[in-house]
Amino acid sequence: MSKNSNWIEAGTVTSPKKFLAGATYCGIRTYTEDKLDLGILFSETPCTVAGTFTQNKVKSPSVVLDQQRVANKSAQAIVINSGIANTSVGEQGMKDAIEMADIAALHLGIDPSLVLPSSTGLIGVELPMALIRSGVSNIQLSPDGGYALARAIRTTDTISKEGAISFTIQGNDYTIGGIAKGSGMVHPNMATMLAFLATDAPVDSSYLQYCLSKAVNSTFNMVSIDGDTSTNDTVLLLANGAGGGTSISDKTEDRHVFEDAVQELSKFLAKEIARDGEGADKLIEVNIDGALTEEDARLAAKSIASSILVKSAVHGGDPNWGRIVVALGYSGAEVREDLVALYINEVCIMEEGRPIPFFKDAVVATMNQPEIDITVNLNLGEHSATAWGCDITEEYVTFNSAYTT
Amino acid sequence: MSKNSNWIEAGTVTSPKKFLAGATYCGIRTYTEDKLDLGILFSETPCTVAGTFTQNKVKSPSVVLDQQRVANKSAQAIVINSGIANTSVGEQGMKDAIEMADIAALHLGIDPSLVLPSSTGLIGVELPMALIRSGVSNIQLSPDGGYALARAIRTTDTISKEGAISFTIQGNDYTIGGIAKGSGMVHPNMATMLAFLATDAPVDSSYLQYCLSKAVNSTFNMVSIDGDTSTNDTVLLLANGAGGGTSISDKTEDRHVFEDAVQELSKFLAKEIARDGEGADKLIEVNIDGALTEEDARLAAKSIASSILVKSAVHGGDPNWGRIVVALGYSGAEVREDLVALYINEVCIMEEGRPIPFFKDAVVATMNQPEIDITVNLNLGEHSATAWGCDITEEYVTFNSAYTT
Repeated sequence: MSKNSNWIEAGTVTSPKKFLAGATYCGIRTYTEDKLDLGILFSETPCTVAGTFTQNKVKSPSVVLDQQRVANKSAQAIVINSGIANTSVGEQGMKDAIEMADIAALHLGIDPSLVLPSSTGLIGVELPMALIRSGVSNIQLSPDGGYALARAIRTTDTISKEGAISFTIQGNDYTIGGIAKGSGMVHPNMATMLAFLATDAPVDSSYLQYCLSKAVNSTFNMVSIDGDTSTNDTVLLLANGAGGGTSISDKTEDRHVFEDAVQELSKFLAKEIARDGEGADKLIEVNIDGALTEEDARLAAKSIASSILVKSAVHGGDPNWGRIVVALGYSGAEVREDLVALYINEVCIMEEGRPIPFFKDAVVATMNQPEIDITVNLNLGEHSATAWGCDITEEYVTFNSAYTT
Repeated sequence: MSKNSNWIEAGTVTSPKKFLAGATYCGIRTYTEDKLDLGILFSETPCTVAGTFTQNKVKSPSVVLDQQRVANKSAQAIVINSGIANTSVGEQGMKDAIEMADIAALHLGIDPSLVLPSSTGLIGVELPMALIRSGVSNIQLSPDGGYALARAIRTTDTISKEGAISFTIQGNDYTIGGIAKGSGMVHPNMATMLAFLATDAPVDSSYLQYCLSKAVNSTFNMVSIDGDTSTNDTVLLLANGAGGGTSISDKTEDRHVFEDAVQELSKFLAKEIARDGEGADKLIEVNIDGALTEEDARLAAKSIASSILVKSAVHGGDPNWGRIVVALGYSGAEVREDLVALYINEVCIMEEGRPIPFFKDAVVATMNQPEIDITVNLNLGEHSATAWGCDITEEYVTFNSAYTT
C-alpha cells in the first residue's frame, strides 16, 4: 500500500464522510434473532459512480437497471435486499427493481434515478414488494450504519466483510470504505458477489470507472469458490467529494495513491470472500510468476485456484503437486514443463519440471495452517498474477445438497 | 444404433477376431487379492490405427510416443500399466516409454514401432522398469483376455467398463469391442481416461481416424467428473481386418454402420465412466436442444454437467433449477432467457424463462433414481448436444483429500 495510506480500525463503508447507512429485517429471509435482510447506503450529496457487473447472460433486472443508471455517471444511494435475487421472474423483475429504487428514493427524498437497487438470494421467486415497502420506511440511517448494512447483505456468509483505508492526495485526507458478500458460487468474472465501496474523495467519473475496473480485474475476478458465476454480481463505487479538494482524474499527479487504495480495499474484501467460501477451512493463494503474458499468468492462477482436485488436496493437507501441474497444463497458459518451478508455503517442491526430494511431513504440517500459498514460476517471461480460492470440504457438499429443499 | 448392429453379451475388447489380451500383477500398485496392474492387447496381424489424445500442455511421454507412432498408421499391440503415469519425470519418461514398448515387442515377437505404451496413475514418479520387465514376460495372451485387461487398467474405478457390438457391412459380419477406465479427474477434452477399442473390420486408416475423432468428440469429450483434465488421456482404435472383406473407407456405401458402431460403443463406455465417477451415486445426462450452433449446444451441455452446484443439487435430490439456469448463462452459449424451457426427468420446470408451478415432491422423488435427465430447450435454433456427469458426494471430497498421503 502507498506510504500515504493506512487501514482504519473497524472501518466500514460509512467510514468516509457524509455516507450514512441503515438496515432492517423486513421478512424476506427466515427469521432468526439479529437477522437483517434489507438496507440502504446513502450519501448526503450526489456522487460520481462506477460499477462492474456479472458476465452471466442471465442477469437480474436489478443488474440491468444499475448498468443503465451507472452510465448516467451520477448516483446517491444503493438499496439492497438479501434472500431473493429478483432473477428469472419475467417482466415483473424490472418492474420490481424500478419500484424498489422508487420506494427508497421517496424515503430518502431524492430523485429515483440516483438510486441503485441490488438483490441477492434465490432465483425464480418474485420480490415481496409489500415487505420491501414497509421495510424501507423502517430503515434509520446513521454514520455508523455500515456495520448493519454489511450484515444485511450476507446470505450464507459466516462473517461480515468490511474495511476502510485513509489516504492523502495533494494534502487532503480522504477515506475509502467498503462492504462485501460472497460465500457459495463465487468465481472469476464476478460470481454471487456483491461489493459496495464509498469514498469521500472527489473523483472524475471516467477515472473512477478506470480505477474500479482495474481493481476488480485483479481482485474480485481472481476469486474462485466453486466455479459458478451468478446472475447478480455487482461492484459499485460511489465518490461524494465530501473530503474537499479538486477532482482527482487521470491527470492528477499522485492519483496512484487513490488507485492503490481502491486496489488494496478490493483485494482485502476479495480475500475475505475466498476465506469464507461455503464450508471452507482454508484460504488458498496462488501466485504465478514468469508467465509469457499477463493473460497467461491470470489463466494459470485461476485454473489452479479453481481445480476441485487441488481444493480437495489442500483440504486434506496433502502436498499433491501433481494436481497443481495438471491444472497448470490445462489452463490454456503457455507452459514449458521442463522450466516449471513450484513452491508450497515457500518449500520448493519442483524444479525444472521434476519433483525434488522434500520432507513431506514438514509440508503436510505447514498445510494445516489456515492460509496455503502455492507459487509457480513458469520461467518463460516477466508477467505475474495472483488468484484466491478455498478448500472444498465435505460440509460444502452437504450444505449445497440441501439449499432449497 | 443401426439395424445391422447388435450388442454382444459379455462383450469386451477381445470379442473381435484375432485380438488377444492378458494381464498380470507386477507390483506397481499396492497388492490386494485379484489386483492386476499391467496388461497387453495384441492383434495377430498388424492393424490400421487411430488415436485421440489429451489437450493438456503437460503430457506423459507415453502419450507423445503414441502420437508419433499413430501417425505411422500401423500398430499391432498396446501395453498398459496402472498405478504410475510416467509423467513429470524429466527425460527418463521418454526412455521408459520406449523401453516399455521394446519389452512388450520382444515378448510378442513384433517390431517395437508397432507397440503403443500407455500409463495411468500418480505423476512425478518414475516407472519401475525392473517390475515391468519381469511382469511383461508373465503375461499370457488369450482370446478372452479382454476381461483381465479391463481390470488391469482400473485405478479408482469401482467396476470394469467393457462392451462389444457386432455389425454387418456389405454382407460381412464384424465386431468392435472396447474397454475403458475413468473415475476421478475426467472432463471434456479427455481427462484421466483411457479407452482401447478394437475391430476385426478392415478400415482405411484415414477413415478410421475420422470415425474415432467424431465419436470421441460427442462422447468421451462430453463427460465431466470433476472438471480436471489429465496428462495421460488416450483413446486408441485398432482395426485388423480379420473379418475379411474389402477395406471400409469414406467411399463405402454402408460405412455409416461402422461409424454408428464406433459412436455407440464410445457412448456406452463414456456413460459408464460418468456413472462410476469417484464417490458418485448418480449419472446425470444433460440434453440441450434448440441451440443456435452445435458449439453452443456443446458449451451449454458441458457447462451444466460440470457445475459443482448442479452436481451437489442432484446429490441432494433437489430440483434447484436456478443453478441450471446460472450454468447455462455463464456457458458462453447464446441464451435468450425469455425463451428457455427446462425439464428434469421429463417434468417441465420452466417455460419462457420463468418457473412454472410443479409438484416439487414428485420431482424430488424422481431425482432419487440412479439416472437424472436434465433437458434444456433454448428455442433459438436447430442444434443439439448431450453431456454426461455425475453427482458430487461427501465421499468424493473425503477420497480426494487423502489420495497420496
